[in-house]
Amino acid sequence: MVLAGESPLTPSTTFDLSTYLTQRKALVETALNHAIEIVYPETIYESMRYSLMAGGKRLRPILCLATCELTGGTLEMAMPTACAVEMIHTMSLIHDDLPAMDDDDYRRGKLTNHKIYGEDIAILAGDGLLSYAFELVATQTEAVPAQQVLQVIARLGRAVGAAGLVGGQVVDLASEGKKDISEETLTFIHTHKTGALLEACVVCGAVLAGASPTKLGHLSRYAQHIGLAFQIVDDILDITATQEELGKTAGKDLVAQKATYPSLWGLEESRRRAEELITQAKTELVPFGEAAMALGAIAEYIVSRSY
Amino acid sequence: MVLAGESPLTPSTTFDLSTYLTQRKALVETALNHAIEIVYPETIYESMRYSLMAGGKRLRPILCLATCELTGGTLEMAMPTACAVEMIHTMSLIHDDLPAMDDDDYRRGKLTNHKIYGEDIAILAGDGLLSYAFELVATQTEAVPAQQVLQVIARLGRAVGAAGLVGGQVVDLASEGKKDISEETLTFIHTHKTGALLEACVVCGAVLAGASPTKLGHLSRYAQHIGLAFQIVDDILDITATQEELGKTAGKDLVAQKATYPSLWGLEESRRRAEELITQAKTELVPFGEAAMALGAIAEYIVSRSY
Repeated sequence: MVLAGESPLTPSTTFDLSTYLTQRKALVETALNHAIEIVYPETIYESMRYSLMAGGKRLRPILCLATCELTGGTLEMAMPTACAVEMIHTMSLIHDDLPAMDDDDYRRGKLTNHKIYGEDIAILAGDGLLSYAFELVATQTEAVPAQQVLQVIARLGRAVGAAGLVGGQVVDLASEGKKDISEETLTFIHTHKTGALLEACVVCGAVLAGASPTKLGHLSRYAQHIGLAFQIVDDILDITATQEELGKTAGKDLVAQKATYPSLWGLEESRRRAEELITQAKTELVPFGEAAMALGAIAEYIVSRSY
Repeated sequence: MVLAGESPLTPSTTFDLSTYLTQRKALVETALNHAIEIVYPETIYESMRYSLMAGGKRLRPILCLATCELTGGTLEMAMPTACAVEMIHTMSLIHDDLPAMDDDDYRRGKLTNHKIYGEDIAILAGDGLLSYAFELVATQTEAVPAQQVLQVIARLGRAVGAAGLVGGQVVDLASEGKKDISEETLTFIHTHKTGALLEACVVCGAVLAGASPTKLGHLSRYAQHIGLAFQIVDDILDITATQEELGKTAGKDLVAQKATYPSLWGLEESRRRAEELITQAKTELVPFGEAAMALGAIAEYIVSRSY
C-alpha cells in the first residue's frame, strides 16, 4: 500500500537492482539464444546472432518483462515480445552503423556487423531481425488473448516505422553538421529515435497482461520520461566518458558536430533536467506501490550511469 | 461444378483477365495511396511512396485479394494484407537495388530509390515499409478473428525473414560470379527470394477467409508452382527482352554471370518447364471449380509474358 505523501524515491532504497538486472538479463539472453538457430544459409543467421548476442544491458526486454509482471502477467507471457524488442533494437543499431548512415566501426566494444559480414549481409541481417521480431510475437506468445497480441504488434510496428524510430533517424541524419538545431527538433529526434521503442517495450508488457488504459497511461508517461533522460545521459556520456567505458567510439557527436542536449543546455543543466525527468517518471509509478520497485530503481539507474 | 476429366485450362478461356487485372490494380493502388500520408519528416514518407507507387503489376496483392474472395471472404477483409505484401515486396526491391547489394540504377523504368533519396534514406524507407506492413495488418484488418490475423502476420514474417526472402537473397549474393551453381541452389534462391512471399500472398488471403487446411494446401502448391514459373520466365526475359520492355537494366544476369534457369537448362527447356509448372498450378485449382478462373488466368498470364 502506498501512503499519501510517501516519497516515490523510497522503494528503490530497499531494492537490489544489480542482482535483479543480472538475473533478468540472463533470462533474456537464454531466450534470445534459443530464438535463432544457425541453419542454411548460415551466414545470415550468424550475422543476426553476432549483433543480437553482442551484449548490452538488455534494458528494453527487462522493462517489458517488468511491466507485464507489474500488471498481473507472467514472465512467460512477455518473453517473446521482450526478445522481439531486442531484435528490433539490434536491427536499428546494425542499420544505423552502416557507412551510408552513421558509419561506425565499433559497437558495444566489438566491430560493427558490416565490418565483419559486409554491408550487404548487414542490411539483410537487420531486415531478418525486424521481420523475425513480428513472427516471434505472433507465433510464440502464449496465454494471451489474440487481440492483445495484435495490439502489441501494432505498437511495435508503429514504434519502429516512420512514425517512430525510422522517422527519428531521418531527422537525426538531416540535422548532422547543423549547429542551430532547435530544442524542438532535438526532442523530436530522441522521442522518435529512442523514445518510441522504449515506450513500446514498457507499454507492451502491460498490454500483454491486459492492464487498464489508466495503468497504460502511467506506464507510457514513465517510459517517455526515462526515454528522454536516457538520451540526455547518453549525450553527456559521449562527452565525459572514454571509448573504453562506452564500448563505442567516444566523442563522435562532437566530431560530427551533432546537436546534443549538452550543446544546447550545457552539461550541468543537462544533468539537472535528466534528474528531473527521473523524478517525474517515478511519480507515475506511485499508483502501483511497492510492486513498481524494479521500475523505480531502473529509472534511477539511468541517471546514475553518468557520474 | 467441375466435371471429372474437365481440363483445368477451360475456365480461363472465358475470363477477361485484362479487365480483371486493371480493375484490381486500381483498387490496390487506391488503397496503397491512402495507406501512407506525407507528414513530417516528409523525406521518408516521400521516399516510401516513391517506390511503393512506382507502378508494377501489383500481382502479389491481387493474388491475396483473389484467394480471400475464392474461399468465401471479402475484398475488404484482405485489403490491408494485400497492401502489406506490396510494401514488403517494395522494401525488398529498395534494399536489393542498393550499391552494397545488386547496385541497380533503374527499377520499373524509374531511377531506384537510393539514386533519388540517397542510400541512408533508401535503407530507412525499406525499414519503414517493412514495419508499417505489420502495423497495417494488425490495426486495419476488420471482420476477421484476431487469431487468423496473427497467423497472417506469422506467415508474412516468415516469408520475408531469413527463412524466406532474406535467406534467398543471401544465397543469391553468395552465388554471383559462380558458374557452377547447382539446380538445387538455384531453386533454393528462387523458392526463398520470390517464392516465399508469393506463397504468403496466396495463402494469407485464404487464411483471412478462414479456409480449411485442405484448401490452404491446394493454394500453397498453386503458389509454389506459379512462383517458380514466374522466376524461370523472369530469367528468360532477362535474356530475350530489351531494357525498354523490362523497365530495368536488361542482360544484368549475363553481365553478373548469375546462374539462371536458361543457363542451366537452355531457353527451350526453361520454357517447357515453366509451362509444365503452370499446368500443375492449375491442377491445384480444380477443386475450386469455376470460382478459381481468375487464379487460373493469372497462372497462364505468367508464362505468356515471355513470348
